[in-house]
Amino acid sequence: MNGFSQLEGLRGHPSVVRVIGHRGARGVMPENTLEGFAFTLAAGVRALEFDVVMTADGVPVVTHNHHLANAMTRDGQGHWLTGAERQVAEMTYAEIRALDVGGLDGRTVYGRRFPDQAFLTGIHVPRLGELLDLCAGYGDQAPYLLLELKSDPALMHDHAARAEMVAAVLADVRRYRMEPRTVMHSFDWALLGECRRQAPDLPTSYLSQLPENADDPGEDSAKPVGPDYDRMTESLPQAVASAGGQLWCPYFLDVTPELVAEAHDLGLIVLTWTVNEPEDIRRMATTGVDGIVTDYPGRTQRILIDMGLSWT
Amino acid sequence: MNGFSQLEGLRGHPSVVRVIGHRGARGVMPENTLEGFAFTLAAGVRALEFDVVMTADGVPVVTHNHHLANAMTRDGQGHWLTGAERQVAEMTYAEIRALDVGGLDGRTVYGRRFPDQAFLTGIHVPRLGELLDLCAGYGDQAPYLLLELKSDPALMHDHAARAEMVAAVLADVRRYRMEPRTVMHSFDWALLGECRRQAPDLPTSYLSQLPENADDPGEDSAKPVGPDYDRMTESLPQAVASAGGQLWCPYFLDVTPELVAEAHDLGLIVLTWTVNEPEDIRRMATTGVDGIVTDYPGRTQRILIDMGLSWT
Repeated sequence: MNGFSQLEGLRGHPSVVRVIGHRGARGVMPENTLEGFAFTLAAGVRALEFDVVMTADGVPVVTHNHHLANAMTRDGQGHWLTGAERQVAEMTYAEIRALDVGGLDGRTVYGRRFPDQAFLTGIHVPRLGELLDLCAGYGDQAPYLLLELKSDPALMHDHAARAEMVAAVLADVRRYRMEPRTVMHSFDWALLGECRRQAPDLPTSYLSQLPENADDPGEDSAKPVGPDYDRMTESLPQAVASAGGQLWCPYFLDVTPELVAEAHDLGLIVLTWTVNEPEDIRRMATTGVDGIVTDYPGRTQRILIDMGLSWT
Repeated sequence: MNGFSQLEGLRGHPSVVRVIGHRGARGVMPENTLEGFAFTLAAGVRALEFDVVMTADGVPVVTHNHHLANAMTRDGQGHWLTGAERQVAEMTYAEIRALDVGGLDGRTVYGRRFPDQAFLTGIHVPRLGELLDLCAGYGDQAPYLLLELKSDPALMHDHAARAEMVAAVLADVRRYRMEPRTVMHSFDWALLGECRRQAPDLPTSYLSQLPENADDPGEDSAKPVGPDYDRMTESLPQAVASAGGQLWCPYFLDVTPELVAEAHDLGLIVLTWTVNEPEDIRRMATTGVDGIVTDYPGRTQRILIDMGLSWT
């Protein structure tokens, strides 16, 4: 159905299920950091998923939440941030870069979710450009990228601001010539339309999570920016195909083999997230999905091999 | 008691318990590989433990067993080795280097012990020199090294062969100027005497495991080369001090706070191995040991922080 080169490393085969490192490899190394991405690639993973938010001075940075989470942020003196969490959109990149995101606070619910994650010091929130530069350095071994745009719920009706975010992100992607590997990925389906308008050469990936499934503790909810599932008259795969997407990325509890087959019939690639427990990884690998987004890529590789599968 | 610079990064303090990466970080990356050691250092670990065995052509190589374990060795075509395991001492380094030690076979008991370990392809057994070169590249941030000499049970009475092994290893250490960071470490207490004769400037570390504790599955036993614990008339710390050691490295099930205190009174540093389960890590950190050798350094860092401790 489509000839996008970006999809070659993301499409599964009968014996291949892709492994996509979630924010790098959040189970092992600090999320959304250059150090974590470098480890993930060194661990043999060929695709990365990460999140992009805009700073007050218009710099696309790699971080998940609109507010810098106290559970993973220390000041320049090594003290955990406390009180109301600061909003990325209200800080300059220089202010953000002075903070340390190399470790998790084990006293928090979020910190306890990843008890094996290494604790580093002096690690900054990367600019998107730094990550793209790192990836471009791998040459023809550069990873495939699921670049998730985190759209600001406060700006859902500000078309100019949204178009500006897309333009700034695309400028970085083109500056580092990472178009051949990059997929634009979002819960905000309308924003993916803007991506296609500005960059018809880049495929788009539609994230979904049915409303009955709970948000993960310590993380921004996707509900305010996602589609209205209750008013959808088509199946999710049909809705993604109608919208013009090439990938459908459902939450793993929403996946059934029937929906995956339907998506494949529509020409879509299906990647599911965030799959961390061994029994869930095994179950997802039997549904026919093209790939698995995981915080534990080593574990996922090993389970796939045990099942007679591979990720490359 | 002693002024060895090599011990600065291994001695604990009231708020410091050292974290030593076991064969790199065996829980996360393939053991005793350059890729695994590089990850361990990137994860903020400042001390590495690894094993050295001699090839037929006299090259010190970094691997644990005298026989290359089928559970972690593939041939150049990617097929698992089968049948009788090949002895390192009977292979040239060129033969060994052609093999791939980047992954574990999940069908084996040994492979199942480390289900999260990344699976890489095209990874060779490193020469000791390659590892020392990697470490020396960190300059004044070079890690402290517990260089474990694996003495061949078949050569226990061949003094010339044993002295030659020590000489070859020391030549590598001096070639890369890693003496200021290197500790000679072995279950073979007699061999450590030979190390001190050839290199009085390097401290020696005495490994012990009481005979009632079982060997780990899939690994060479230390029993044939270790001391005769039943005939020992002193406590283990006394025996190490009498032998001239600076470090005592007991198996973690053999550790008591009383023995640690006795060792400290004798001027010894105590590092315990291989401590992987959270409850064991917590318990060891309360015994007063100077450091913990672990396959899971990230987990160990996090537990220490939760206890109000640090590893640097």
